Amino acid sequence: MERILSADVKAHVGGEVLVRGWLHKKRLIGGINFIVVRDRGGLVQVVVQDESEIAKLQGLQVGTVLSVQGQAVAEERAPGGAEIHQPKITVEVPVTDEPPIEIDKPLSHKPENLDTLFDNRVLGLRNLREQAIFKIQAETKEAFRKFLRSQDFTEFNSPKLLAGATEGGAEVFKLDYFGKEATLAQSGQFYKQMMVGVFERAFEINPTYRAEPSATTRHMTEFIHIDAEVGFITFPELLDLLSNCLSFVIDHVWETCKTELKMWQAEKPKLSAKVPALTMTEIHSLYSKATGTDTTNELDLIPDEERWICEYGKKELGSEAVFVTEWPKADAKFYHKMMEDKPDKAKRCDLLFRGVEIATGSMREHRYDKLVAQLKEMAGGDPESSGFKYYISAFKYGMPPHGGFGWGLERTVEKIIGLANVKEATLFPRDINRLAP
Amino acid sequence: MERILSADVKAHVGGEVLVRGWLHKKRLIGGINFIVVRDRGGLVQVVVQDESEIAKLQGLQVGTVLSVQGQAVAEERAPGGAEIHQPKITVEVPVTDEPPIEIDKPLSHKPENLDTLFDNRVLGLRNLREQAIFKIQAETKEAFRKFLRSQDFTEFNSPKLLAGATEGGAEVFKLDYFGKEATLAQSGQFYKQMMVGVFERAFEINPTYRAEPSATTRHMTEFIHIDAEVGFITFPELLDLLSNCLSFVIDHVWETCKTELKMWQAEKPKLSAKVPALTMTEIHSLYSKATGTDTTNELDLIPDEERWICEYGKKELGSEAVFVTEWPKADAKFYHKMMEDKPDKAKRCDLLFRGVEIATGSMREHRYDKLVAQLKEMAGGDPESSGFKYYISAFKYGMPPHGGFGWGLERTVEKIIGLANVKEATLFPRDINRLAP
Repeated sequence: MERILSADVKAHVGGEVLVRGWLHKKRLIGGINFIVVRDRGGLVQVVVQDESEIAKLQGLQVGTVLSVQGQAVAEERAPGGAEIHQPKITVEVPVTDEPPIEIDKPLSHKPENLDTLFDNRVLGLRNLREQAIFKIQAETKEAFRKFLRSQDFTEFNSPKLLAGATEGGAEVFKLDYFGKEATLAQSGQFYKQMMVGVFERAFEINPTYRAEPSATTRHMTEFIHIDAEVGFITFPELLDLLSNCLSFVIDHVWETCKTELKMWQAEKPKLSAKVPALTMTEIHSLYSKATGTDTTNELDLIPDEERWICEYGKKELGSEAVFVTEWPKADAKFYHKMMEDKPDKAKRCDLLFRGVEIATGSMREHRYDKLVAQLKEMAGGDPESSGFKYYISAFKYGMPPHGGFGWGLERTVEKIIGLANVKEATLFPRDINRLAP
Repeated sequence: MERILSADVKAHVGGEVLVRGWLHKKRLIGGINFIVVRDRGGLVQVVVQDESEIAKLQGLQVGTVLSVQGQAVAEERAPGGAEIHQPKITVEVPVTDEPPIEIDKPLSHKPENLDTLFDNRVLGLRNLREQAIFKIQAETKEAFRKFLRSQDFTEFNSPKLLAGATEGGAEVFKLDYFGKEATLAQSGQFYKQMMVGVFERAFEINPTYRAEPSATTRHMTEFIHIDAEVGFITFPELLDLLSNCLSFVIDHVWETCKTELKMWQAEKPKLSAKVPALTMTEIHSLYSKATGTDTTNELDLIPDEERWICEYGKKELGSEAVFVTEWPKADAKFYHKMMEDKPDKAKRCDLLFRGVEIATGSMREHRYDKLVAQLKEMAGGDPESSGFKYYISAFKYGMPPHGGFGWGLERTVEKIIGLANVKEATLFPRDINRLAP
């Protein structure tokens, strides 16, 4: 008999079905005896009355792999609207040890319990609510690709093994490469810019490495970065691109992950047609006035300001996402383009969403002479060195005006669901203290 | 006036158009003067007769960024079937140095010229024939995702930073992780198996690292691996899955990359409905008979045998892809499942395609006791050590029969196009001698 999924039992009501999966819950204490079986379709309840069937499950624990053949019966109160009666159970793989965590109840995500959550991740992911996070992550990633491909972007893969640190030497992992030193890429920045000279519009979605020396709720040493770059674009067009991308991703996830979002009571974010843009000076001024904490001399937003301005956006501007523009040159990268009318400000936009920066974009300096000057002045870099010369050559031989963004996958999923720590949205998170499982 | 792409000029014949892109070719030597402009749509020819327009291009080299406004005129012999007449040219970004390579002619892929090819990769990719390789790569990757998602697989991301080597200690990169030692993942093997306990069917497409100490035509230190794993599957079903996946990928690429495949005169591979499976013993015997070279005592296929059996498959079995089955246990991994009737053979299948192994699949030992025994016996591993204990816990608490595969993206693209070296199908290849650009 062919196996069907738990989710399809309802469609077979009145007939006989075979399901295979894991024992998810067992309640064989007299009265109404039942078990719950989990498969990739979800859960199905199996009413077990026959003593010989009950005996088969004696001493077996959650996780036991079973096949169950029986009658599909409509039952409104059961998950999926149907259950299986008069089962013949076959134990395929017995589990006799009790699992270290209960997987049929919501697992705690309190800050003090996160280590337990991650230590038990391999089994904890068998909890449907945990799974939901990563179903949402998969669809979020798919949405980014769908959007970018629809906008004529070509996907590429840049190397993560590099000869030297590119964007700055501090937070870089070093490794032994056949006796030489190599580093792990902190972003696909240089490569995606080179690809503008090739495809005009290019993106990659790949792991990125930062030797972040502190354990915070927003940083990890390894994360998935959506790196995109566009030739022949203006700054307002770049803002529109990010804005449209966010709307597309949110709509896609709310269309494809209804059940999963419901498990987390995730509310669809309020977004205006275009994400409103505020300058850093405006935000400092609004925040300082509202809170009494003076941030007007900060080069960046302080974390509480990021939270506050998103609240402000939601209440006053009808958007839970906000752009921060006009970043001070003192905080800029050498490849950023400065504003024509304000040469001490960079044409950069950070996208804040529900209190956290999820993406950062900017126009890039595309003029060879100017770029070389900024590399020397702002980064102390040598344009002839092997870390820069290939990158610089793309400009020497013609690069159009261009801009792009880096977007964090896990932070986006964190904020879509309403989690408090980016690691909760990461399958196997890595930070200074954690390298396992 | 709004910019259009070169590919759309034909649709505007009779009207005025604006294109923006790179000077790709310049022929201003009297008679019929023209330039060719490249953008993400391809190439468009611009006939330049006006002396003042010709003067603007004086001293400018290929790569110069231009905008060109003029009349769209039908011209059968021009690329795209149309060209631009009476242009007004604006030089957006002048390039005055001659590029180190000619990008409007096919670049040499001869083995002795590959270093030149890769040293000049940043500019060489502006050649349309080189671009074509990576358009095909992008669609190949998309095809894998499309196929696997259609088969109910959930995409995930496993960490590439690990506490210790997993599958074997030799070819692993080590790095300094805040004073501790970490390694780079050689595959997503353990994680994808753990994910069977979660999603039943899961895949990731991510970089993989091997400290391969030799420079060959088939190995790199960093490559993109399609890692997939399936619960509740049998070995014949696994063969079917790989077979269907290959057919889907080939069909998708031949549908979406017509122009690009034509540039390489790539022939659509001959494939039978199912990829034919031969045991290693059968192949050794066929090869030894046909060539006189005795390989019957080899634990693996020798490279020439891989090439030969694919030729044999094409001629005798109507398929340019062949499965190799029944691998000797002596060459197996500890997580492989052995055959019930031949315990010295593993239930493994390598997928050979046009002379090279592009994928390797196997059934995995899913029984906890048996797996622990094989780990100790075949790999000398300690199931309590941090490198294995999380992996092993998935089995302790219930894993169904399962199998899966690892599939190399670049090798697949290499063989689709008919290239001779996997590095030719890699944007910025990495091997023992190459860490740049």
